[in-house]
Amino acid sequence: MHAYTPALLAALALTSAAAQAATTNKLSASDVIKASQPSEWRPLDPGNTLYMDLPAGRVVIELAPEFAPKHAANIRTLVKEHYFDGLVVLRSHDNYVAQWGDADEKNPRPLGSAQAKLAAEFTAPMANDKHFVRLPDHDGYAPQVGHSNGFPVGRDPKTKTTWLTHCYGMVGVGRDMDADSGSGTSLYAVTGHAPRHLDRNITVVGRVVSGMPLLSSLPRGTGPLGFYEKPEQNVPIKSIRLAADVPEAERSHLEVMRTDSASFKAVAESQRNRPGPWTKVPAGYIELCNVTIPVREQAR
Amino acid sequence: MHAYTPALLAALALTSAAAQAATTNKLSASDVIKASQPSEWRPLDPGNTLYMDLPAGRVVIELAPEFAPKHAANIRTLVKEHYFDGLVVLRSHDNYVAQWGDADEKNPRPLGSAQAKLAAEFTAPMANDKHFVRLPDHDGYAPQVGHSNGFPVGRDPKTKTTWLTHCYGMVGVGRDMDADSGSGTSLYAVTGHAPRHLDRNITVVGRVVSGMPLLSSLPRGTGPLGFYEKPEQNVPIKSIRLAADVPEAERSHLEVMRTDSASFKAVAESQRNRPGPWTKVPAGYIELCNVTIPVREQAR
Repeated sequence: MHAYTPALLAALALTSAAAQAATTNKLSASDVIKASQPSEWRPLDPGNTLYMDLPAGRVVIELAPEFAPKHAANIRTLVKEHYFDGLVVLRSHDNYVAQWGDADEKNPRPLGSAQAKLAAEFTAPMANDKHFVRLPDHDGYAPQVGHSNGFPVGRDPKTKTTWLTHCYGMVGVGRDMDADSGSGTSLYAVTGHAPRHLDRNITVVGRVVSGMPLLSSLPRGTGPLGFYEKPEQNVPIKSIRLAADVPEAERSHLEVMRTDSASFKAVAESQRNRPGPWTKVPAGYIELCNVTIPVREQAR
Repeated sequence: MHAYTPALLAALALTSAAAQAATTNKLSASDVIKASQPSEWRPLDPGNTLYMDLPAGRVVIELAPEFAPKHAANIRTLVKEHYFDGLVVLRSHDNYVAQWGDADEKNPRPLGSAQAKLAAEFTAPMANDKHFVRLPDHDGYAPQVGHSNGFPVGRDPKTKTTWLTHCYGMVGVGRDMDADSGSGTSLYAVTGHAPRHLDRNITVVGRVVSGMPLLSSLPRGTGPLGFYEKPEQNVPIKSIRLAADVPEAERSHLEVMRTDSASFKAVAESQRNRPGPWTKVPAGYIELCNVTIPVREQAR
C-alpha cells in the first residue's frame, strides 16, 4: 500500500461519510449498515440467482421473477441447459451497457427447450408487486419511484403498472424491433449513467448484485455501438449457472438489505442529506438510481 | 469483423435510432447532427483545452473558466510548469470517479508558481453565465437545469447562482474538509451514474470531451474508495499539456455543438422522445445528464 498523500486525503474526503458523521448526530450509510439488524437482510434465493463466471471472476445476478416471470423462467432453462457456457461478452459500450450472448452467426447455438421469442414483460401489474416502498423524491421518468424487494422500480397508478428501472447494474433482455422478440439469449447490464428512456421499452429481468467491475471495466468495443470488432476481443464466459445447481462449496453467500426495512430508509436518507462537515450543501433529494441497495457477505 | 448474429441485431435495435427514424418524420440525434449547420459548432479553445496523454491514448478536457476562473487559471499554471507529467491516475472507483494526482507522500512534487489552496468556486454568479439555455425538464437536484457553452448546468434564481453539474465525464477538483482546500493538483472525472449530490460541494472545472473510455475502463482499484493498492497499479500520466502549447501537428481538432443552437435543442428532443418503431413508449422527458453534448472531429 502506498501512503496517503494530501491529494489522496483530499480525495478520501470526497466520500468518507463515515468519518464525517462522527461529528454529527446523523448517521452515514456505512453507520446505518453497521447498526442494522440481521432481520433487515435477506439471503439471495439460490433458485433465482445466476453466477456468470468470467476468466477474471464471478458476476452474481439476482433475477426478478415478480417483474418478468416468463423471461426469468426462460433464462433459467437456458442456464440449466448450459446455453451460455462458452459464449461471450461481445459488447462494451461506454457509458451504456455490456452485453453477452452468441457471437457465432453461422452456427448459432441451439436453444434446447427454451423459447426463441417471448411476450414482452416491459411492465407488470401493480397488484403483483407486494413489496413496493415509495421514495418521496420526484422522478422525471415515472409518476412514482421506489424499491421492491431489492430492485429499483417505477410505477404508474393510472395504468396500474410497475416496472424495473434501468439503473446502474440492472440486467435487461436484448430484443429486435418487435416488442415480443426477446428471449433472454442476449442479455446486457447497465454500465453507465442510467438510460432510463429504455424503461418500459424492454424487459428487465434482474440486477447485478456483485461483480459489476468485471463488466464495467471491460475494454470498450471500437465497433459500432461498442461491439468488439475482432472475435479475440470477445470475453469468454466460462459458465452461467443457477446458484441452486452449484455445489455448496462453490457458492457465493450474499445477502441484500431488505428495501422495506427501517435501515434501508435510513440509508436513502443518509444519501439524500449527507451528514458530516465535508458536505456544505446537502442535496435534500436523491435520485432513484443514486440510492445504494446494500449487499454484503453473509456472516457464517 | 465478425458478422452480426440475431443476438447482435437485437442488440443493435436497442439503440439504432438513426435507422428507426427513417420510418417517421422525426429525426434521430445522429440525423440532427448530420443536418446541422457548420455555424452550430465551435472549435475548442486551445487556451482552455488540456491534453492528458496516457500510455493508451489521449484524454481531452475542456476547462470552464466562466464557472471556475481561479481553478482554471491555477490548473493552467500547473500544466504549463509540467506539474502532472509523470504523475498517475491513482484511483478508479466503480460507478463513481477516476482520479489523478501525486501518489508520492514522502516527496510531494513542488507546486511551482501555482497556489496550494484556492477559494471555493462551487457556484458562480448567474450574471457571469451568458450562455445558459434552460431545459424544460424537471430536475430534483436544482431548481433549473440546462446547458451553458457546452457544459451541463444547474442554477437557482433565488440565490442567483449557477454551477456545473456532476454528469458523466465532468472534471472536478479534489479537496479536503475545508471548502477552500482544493487547488487543482488532484483532479477526478465522473465515470459512473451522476453523483449529483456533489454539486455545489466541490469545484467543477471542466469536461472530458474525448477519451472517456481511457478513464472509465481502467481496472477498478481494490483499496478503500477505489484507490489502487500497489504503486505498480497506478496508471502513469505521460503529460498534461495545454493545447495552445502543443505543436499544431500533435493537436486534436475537435468541435463541440453549440448548446444554444437549434440543432442542440433538436438533439435533446430526439432523446426525450425517441423516434422510430423500436421505441414503444417515448419517455417524454430527459434527465440533464442523459442529454448528449455532441463532439466531433473538425472537417479540415
